[in-house]
Amino acid sequence: MANAAPSTPDTLPAWQALLRHAETQKQTPLKTLFERDVDGERFATFSRRVAGLTLDLSKQRWSGETLEQLLSLAREAGVPEAIEGLLSGRRVNKSEDRPALHTALRLPEGAELNVDGEDVAAAVHESLAQMEKLVERLHAGQWRGATGKPIQRVVNLGVGGSDLGPQMVTHALADFRPDDIHRLKVHFASTMDGSQLVDYLSRLDPETTLFVLSSKSFTTVDTLSNANTARDWLLSRLTRQGATPISPELVVRQHFIGVSACPEKMTQWGITPDHQLRFWEWVGGRYSLWGTIGLPIALVIGMANFRRLLAGAHAMDEHFSSAPLADNAPVMLALAGIWNVNFLDIRAHSILPYDGRLEYFSAYLEQLEMESNGKSVTRDGEPAGYSTCPVLWGQLGPNAQHAFYQLLHQGTQSVVCDFIAPLTRYDDVDDADTRRLLQSQHRLTLANCFAQSRLLMLGDDAIDDDAPRPAHKRYRGNQPSTTVLLDRLTPETLGSLIALYEHKVFVQAVIWDINPFDQWGVELGKQIAGQTQQILEGDATPEGMDASTRGLMEAFWTVGQKG
Amino acid sequence: MANAAPSTPDTLPAWQALLRHAETQKQTPLKTLFERDVDGERFATFSRRVAGLTLDLSKQRWSGETLEQLLSLAREAGVPEAIEGLLSGRRVNKSEDRPALHTALRLPEGAELNVDGEDVAAAVHESLAQMEKLVERLHAGQWRGATGKPIQRVVNLGVGGSDLGPQMVTHALADFRPDDIHRLKVHFASTMDGSQLVDYLSRLDPETTLFVLSSKSFTTVDTLSNANTARDWLLSRLTRQGATPISPELVVRQHFIGVSACPEKMTQWGITPDHQLRFWEWVGGRYSLWGTIGLPIALVIGMANFRRLLAGAHAMDEHFSSAPLADNAPVMLALAGIWNVNFLDIRAHSILPYDGRLEYFSAYLEQLEMESNGKSVTRDGEPAGYSTCPVLWGQLGPNAQHAFYQLLHQGTQSVVCDFIAPLTRYDDVDDADTRRLLQSQHRLTLANCFAQSRLLMLGDDAIDDDAPRPAHKRYRGNQPSTTVLLDRLTPETLGSLIALYEHKVFVQAVIWDINPFDQWGVELGKQIAGQTQQILEGDATPEGMDASTRGLMEAFWTVGQKG
Repeated sequence: MANAAPSTPDTLPAWQALLRHAETQKQTPLKTLFERDVDGERFATFSRRVAGLTLDLSKQRWSGETLEQLLSLAREAGVPEAIEGLLSGRRVNKSEDRPALHTALRLPEGAELNVDGEDVAAAVHESLAQMEKLVERLHAGQWRGATGKPIQRVVNLGVGGSDLGPQMVTHALADFRPDDIHRLKVHFASTMDGSQLVDYLSRLDPETTLFVLSSKSFTTVDTLSNANTARDWLLSRLTRQGATPISPELVVRQHFIGVSACPEKMTQWGITPDHQLRFWEWVGGRYSLWGTIGLPIALVIGMANFRRLLAGAHAMDEHFSSAPLADNAPVMLALAGIWNVNFLDIRAHSILPYDGRLEYFSAYLEQLEMESNGKSVTRDGEPAGYSTCPVLWGQLGPNAQHAFYQLLHQGTQSVVCDFIAPLTRYDDVDDADTRRLLQSQHRLTLANCFAQSRLLMLGDDAIDDDAPRPAHKRYRGNQPSTTVLLDRLTPETLGSLIALYEHKVFVQAVIWDINPFDQWGVELGKQIAGQTQQILEGDATPEGMDASTRGLMEAFWTVGQKG
Repeated sequence: MANAAPSTPDTLPAWQALLRHAETQKQTPLKTLFERDVDGERFATFSRRVAGLTLDLSKQRWSGETLEQLLSLAREAGVPEAIEGLLSGRRVNKSEDRPALHTALRLPEGAELNVDGEDVAAAVHESLAQMEKLVERLHAGQWRGATGKPIQRVVNLGVGGSDLGPQMVTHALADFRPDDIHRLKVHFASTMDGSQLVDYLSRLDPETTLFVLSSKSFTTVDTLSNANTARDWLLSRLTRQGATPISPELVVRQHFIGVSACPEKMTQWGITPDHQLRFWEWVGGRYSLWGTIGLPIALVIGMANFRRLLAGAHAMDEHFSSAPLADNAPVMLALAGIWNVNFLDIRAHSILPYDGRLEYFSAYLEQLEMESNGKSVTRDGEPAGYSTCPVLWGQLGPNAQHAFYQLLHQGTQSVVCDFIAPLTRYDDVDDADTRRLLQSQHRLTLANCFAQSRLLMLGDDAIDDDAPRPAHKRYRGNQPSTTVLLDRLTPETLGSLIALYEHKVFVQAVIWDINPFDQWGVELGKQIAGQTQQILEGDATPEGMDASTRGLMEAFWTVGQKG
């Protein structure tokens, strides 16, 4: 590179101005920001309503001036142009030279999006139609196993993006199961050690069990190992059944669906073309639940509800595309994060849903955010001299109150929290007594949600004391938080919620000047694991390995079986 | 306080020496530490075997000198005396003026431990015997519901310590279910919003379902709300059954067991004394799985296996009590943490089990560590001017490889990782083909475990390249980690593993001079939630509330139902 190094975002005028602004702003505790707000405008100033969601950012440690400067940063970093580039199919994934078109997966029927001369939207709707056919066959009880019995259980074999999204959504929307379909149960097995799979194999009936093999590359060793074990289980139990022998080909044909971007590899593995669902290289694994990887979702909630999920995400896409920066919910959420990470030095972020149906939401976001933005090299290959993605973790909020909230309230490090809750719930419960009790549990939960963010903000001042409290009972407060309220949890609002976070992650990546759509940080581990396995198996020597690795291997050879 | 402020640990000579030592030590990358180890002694120097566990601390960013100085710090901070005080029943929980005697729960039969003139060990074994009676009745199919049918399903209603421990252990040891017992399934419902409970109510048969109401104080609103809804469900379905009406008292009597330190409150709620299991104020919630709170564990794995779990923990207690500091596994694990947090400024800690059976282990540790040590006030009420508990989070390691490992390898912040894996597995699978496949999956998993800690340590140097890699494919390495290997996962080794972490947390608390056994940081939230609920319900006005809280409440009144 003969030219001067490209400038990194921390050299932008707005970034520099924010550094100066932060010096004074961070002296002002959150409670003072609220005290100064004599007209009570702070909520209105920092909250937005969009697509069935209410986003409250007033409990961030910022002022109107902070937000103005952050908006300048967004403009200087080219956020508006980047949004346009993302949604129109430009090659935003520079290191892999391709677009990132998950938003195309939720374009409504009839929309058009030409990328490299192809109408992507039409291709998407074709693949949805294909998926619908499989779903309907299974829902009608017309998909039969090799011995002729209708399929009753589906086990999704996939990991990472082929697992976290589908599992999170099916759990969240389990109330939306259609009544009028052939009874079908969907399970998930992801871990390469076979733990979950073995448990299913011990309980399920091979004659009525179908496996969905989900892997974008169709080379994911975790998934293929599980698939091999599942295939062996099916073959050993089904080919020997009854008087007429059943061919292995028939078993594999009737008991496996493949979902991948590599049809040849699916065919090679033995999946019949009719039972292959495809998607595209331009859909990242962690952004893939919206298409055919979402098959388990559609199997649980039905295709109509699946399309409602897409419509909810599309509503957020539209907002993201058209709303001015200062009213753009994903942009505002992103800017709050930038402020916390880069100017208040907050390195940890907790995701706290106050609704048991969102049990897997934090695990989902852990992947979405940390795999997308856990990077330290700019798009031009320069080292990022500033923090990027914080550590994200979470748990159902009410449960975490009995677990790690202690650290949030009285620990030594700052943590920013996202509280997520639905406003309306349980109004559809039939039995009047049960409804009354459950609605009361819902209000109790909401009250806890509101109370905790208030306490994190105000600390000791959240309550009037009769006497001074001893030191170990004191709360310093000043912990910032965001609250996202869903009018109610439906396919639409869940779709909007996920898209909100997807776009937040994108905006932060633009400002940090990193590529959120690659994941080179997971490639090397795969290579090294292969070498390590050869040594463990005795097919290679541990020469050149470090003392620790050798010690661990010795422990395996001494204590563990060689198999 | 007229006297000089008591000295905090950062004023100790060893702490000061460590600060100086860290200045040079942190300049040396982990790979250099291994390169310097020409004799390959580093593994032997920094690993220990105890109670079926191998603890490898050689991939920490420390040297022999560092460890020496940390051991001095432990001595100066009074760790040996503190261990003795803990195990002998001294009032180590100063703010609540009581001992912390979870180790007494796993004393072997015949042991004695006199605390305040009472033989605690005898009382413990009496309570275990009582628990055993209930377990045997249920395992024999002799516990009948109000309509006369044997109980088949047990739902544990509890949260925090009354949920995380039992759930983690029952999942980890599911293979240890005895064969010769009446079939019983155990479920867990914890969340105050009723989500999990509602799901069970929709699927379970009230005639054969028993609820275990677990709450140390028996005032936990989360658990009592769920219990009320469960009771209502039972009453509405069972009292109206058949020709002869069944009394509500009989229903409550036959369908609820209580586990608590407050018998009067259990009685008040309607739990018959025969169906009450008790424990003691001196058992902290997050340390309570070893006693009657462990009822769901004993129901799943049987009392004999439950006692094996206790024996494994006791083996670690013995080691903790008698091993010299330099060979004391919990002490060494604790010191690695102190070094990372206080001298290398590493604020995040990831727990990564390479075994699907340990799926809930990280959630368990999140509570154990962050609720115990997420404190910032010393035992004398002084502010701690140094970091204490880091943020802990985790996921099954192989799954996290496809999720947040990107951030571990290429993110901008240092994270320390604990890798946990069993050496032997699947040797008891009957079918030869299945065994071969599963053992191969096990070796694949171990290979990944070893490969990842190696890659985190070495970065780019873990592999030979043909050509220089572009910046976005480079790994900086130097991320420290610990590996804990279990010979195999059994009740004993799981007991040892949990006790290892319990004692680690204790040693860190001693050095940080904080009380790990109280949790004042969760009390205020309960009070404020009560007030907030009154306002939400319309029984109080939002006057005096901040603008954000008022805005959120408005959203509820506008969109959410009032019930």
